[in-house]
Amino acid sequence: MSNIQTLTAYDIIEKKRHRLENTYQEIDYMVSGYTKGTVPDYMMSAWLMAICMGGMSKKETFALTEIMMKSGDVISFDTTVVDKHSTGGVSDSTSLILVPILASVGVDVAKMSGRALGFTGGTIDKLEVFDGYKADVSQDVFKKLIKKNHGAIISQSAYIAPADKAIYALRDKTATVDSIPLIASSIMSKKLASGAKIILLDVKFGSGAFMKTEKDAIALAKLMVEIGAHFGRKMEAIVTNMDSPLGTGVGCVYEIKNVLSCLDNNSCDLLTLSKYFATRLVVLATNCDEKHAQSLVEDSLKTHKARHKFDGIISSLGGDIGVADNLPQSKYTYQVKAKINGYITHIDAYGIAKAVQHLALNSDNKKVEGVELASISKKVNVNDVIATIHSNNKISKSTIEDIEKAITISSKNKKKKLIYKVIKGEK
Amino acid sequence: MSNIQTLTAYDIIEKKRHRLENTYQEIDYMVSGYTKGTVPDYMMSAWLMAICMGGMSKKETFALTEIMMKSGDVISFDTTVVDKHSTGGVSDSTSLILVPILASVGVDVAKMSGRALGFTGGTIDKLEVFDGYKADVSQDVFKKLIKKNHGAIISQSAYIAPADKAIYALRDKTATVDSIPLIASSIMSKKLASGAKIILLDVKFGSGAFMKTEKDAIALAKLMVEIGAHFGRKMEAIVTNMDSPLGTGVGCVYEIKNVLSCLDNNSCDLLTLSKYFATRLVVLATNCDEKHAQSLVEDSLKTHKARHKFDGIISSLGGDIGVADNLPQSKYTYQVKAKINGYITHIDAYGIAKAVQHLALNSDNKKVEGVELASISKKVNVNDVIATIHSNNKISKSTIEDIEKAITISSKNKKKKLIYKVIKGEK
Repeated sequence: MSNIQTLTAYDIIEKKRHRLENTYQEIDYMVSGYTKGTVPDYMMSAWLMAICMGGMSKKETFALTEIMMKSGDVISFDTTVVDKHSTGGVSDSTSLILVPILASVGVDVAKMSGRALGFTGGTIDKLEVFDGYKADVSQDVFKKLIKKNHGAIISQSAYIAPADKAIYALRDKTATVDSIPLIASSIMSKKLASGAKIILLDVKFGSGAFMKTEKDAIALAKLMVEIGAHFGRKMEAIVTNMDSPLGTGVGCVYEIKNVLSCLDNNSCDLLTLSKYFATRLVVLATNCDEKHAQSLVEDSLKTHKARHKFDGIISSLGGDIGVADNLPQSKYTYQVKAKINGYITHIDAYGIAKAVQHLALNSDNKKVEGVELASISKKVNVNDVIATIHSNNKISKSTIEDIEKAITISSKNKKKKLIYKVIKGEK
Repeated sequence: MSNIQTLTAYDIIEKKRHRLENTYQEIDYMVSGYTKGTVPDYMMSAWLMAICMGGMSKKETFALTEIMMKSGDVISFDTTVVDKHSTGGVSDSTSLILVPILASVGVDVAKMSGRALGFTGGTIDKLEVFDGYKADVSQDVFKKLIKKNHGAIISQSAYIAPADKAIYALRDKTATVDSIPLIASSIMSKKLASGAKIILLDVKFGSGAFMKTEKDAIALAKLMVEIGAHFGRKMEAIVTNMDSPLGTGVGCVYEIKNVLSCLDNNSCDLLTLSKYFATRLVVLATNCDEKHAQSLVEDSLKTHKARHKFDGIISSLGGDIGVADNLPQSKYTYQVKAKINGYITHIDAYGIAKAVQHLALNSDNKKVEGVELASISKKVNVNDVIATIHSNNKISKSTIEDIEKAITISSKNKKKKLIYKVIKGEK
């Protein structure tokens, strides 16, 4: 296999089938070949399944990441830019809060975001609540916005890691998504190509995340931190729980409502997590001590600098910030009420997300479909409203039951733990 | 997954990816879907790789075999018919000897054979040395020939297990051949559809076979015997060694020459093995004791009944048996001579087979390309001919070296062991 002339996709797959290590050259042969169309999809999917079941060494994972990163544009910024990435969760709007906080304290933050994936919402979908918001802009515009505002949130560009895009589409059809090295290299190829020198990863686990266990989340976080460090990035990964939704809204309008409330410094777990991430990124970007970073973040919120920055970020991409004072409303609402006295100890993120997905299915305006929820730990009495369902269609009994079933009220309160582990890495 | 409406190829692959058991219904969904074209090749190859790496339970293997068997014609004979199958080896012409022996003693034998596969020769290719031999006949003709001659050798019909044919073609391109349950169900689906009630399997291992180790050969043999027994067949599997070629010829013409010599009762390991298989099949078909079966086989050879039956079998399908007395000759020959005194202790089957494959590559008559070899265990002196290379092209130095390299002469003789294990099975 040392001679490039003798490389064939068959031999490369066969090695992986026998749990042997593929070389950089072999991985490149498969990835580039698949992207160009010379390696057929049925060979690629067999190779991907062999990886899922046989694993990949660090060396192979670094190679795959590099090859996918180099398959498209690789952005470079004049300044030290930070980025934050979440592996995806229900009502995870932390980016919308921490980007304006960071930008308001002068930390340059370049955020490329995606649309809804599976049962999780998409940051770009949420931003489009502000009529006119145009997330699909060129690299040039992206750079100018960061220069102007210190921060911007745009769509994931099609020119970033196109090989990953092609491979992910195949994985999504062949049950080969569920592999820690494949997930890590997919995320990190895009992050490395996006140009940030400092990357904070929010690796979520629980019913409302793609990783179901803490153990898998830690393994994924460690691997991504190692990849980033290998390629010269300053890395930090925070392993967080996603059993219950973050904040008090699920669905675009209700998550934006929650974001605006957080920017007004009204406490909830979404704000807690966003402030923590913002603080860590200030520390990583400026090398200041954590206490100082924390005070900068708190000050930005208290003095409304973060909220002003948010307005600027929205307006700069054509979004009508006036919508903030007049959020769209659904035609129908239904109030779910507590049947017993007690504390809300658990809200099943997956159950809520699937119910909202179901609501949006036949809606004429998916943005207004959703649920507002009471906070976890809240003390409630019989008949208190614990959830408000919003829809442009009549709300069915089964949806109501699904929401009711997702909310647990117990006589004894439980403290919700959000942050489970911090993993740091630097070359 | 219990509801057929909810079955999707994705879910079925995902189960196998997590090493869970697929149901009969799920396996049918994949196999029938792939054959009909509703399950795309990239999903099928991912599933096949998951099977290669995660294995299959007995229950799954039985299901896969049954589904592939039922995908095409299933032949049934009026009489108890026997069949023999070899997993493939170099210069394995046992079928051409044991079929006429069995037919000559009144045991009905129905043999469907294939063409060359990889480095191994094909029975049908060898039979076509007899000009006019037409192996591609209908089921009806097959049945009539067995009634008339008690035996026939025809091509594997395209109507037998077409699902296996389609899946095998994909496996061959995706490095998913190497899986004991997939190999076992592939072979047995065809054998079960071919209608024999008694099946003898020759499971070969060694450099000239597809299974490289005795352990794998035994595992494959046991599984195939279990499958056959599960479906009501009387089964026997013989695990045999294939490190050195069987007999004294490799290449169509030289294998036919060896077969004719065996039918004239000239001893060599090819004859030994063929007689053993024939004896076992007489025992299985007639329930007589082994000694009696042995005497029937010996008698058939001594009295030339087997050779007459061979002539009849060839002639009945249009083959010119006159060719036997006037076998085609190659334009060039080269005699490889012993460089030391000693015993021929090893001839590397794979090395010889690859050299012959190479000779045939640019030949105007592939049938005359080949090598005649001295027998294993033969005592030779310096300059004795140990191999004769035949070709219609000039014989290159590298081919000569390849053949020389494949033959080991040692000062001490070693007895060659052919039969390693016998595995029996009945429902």
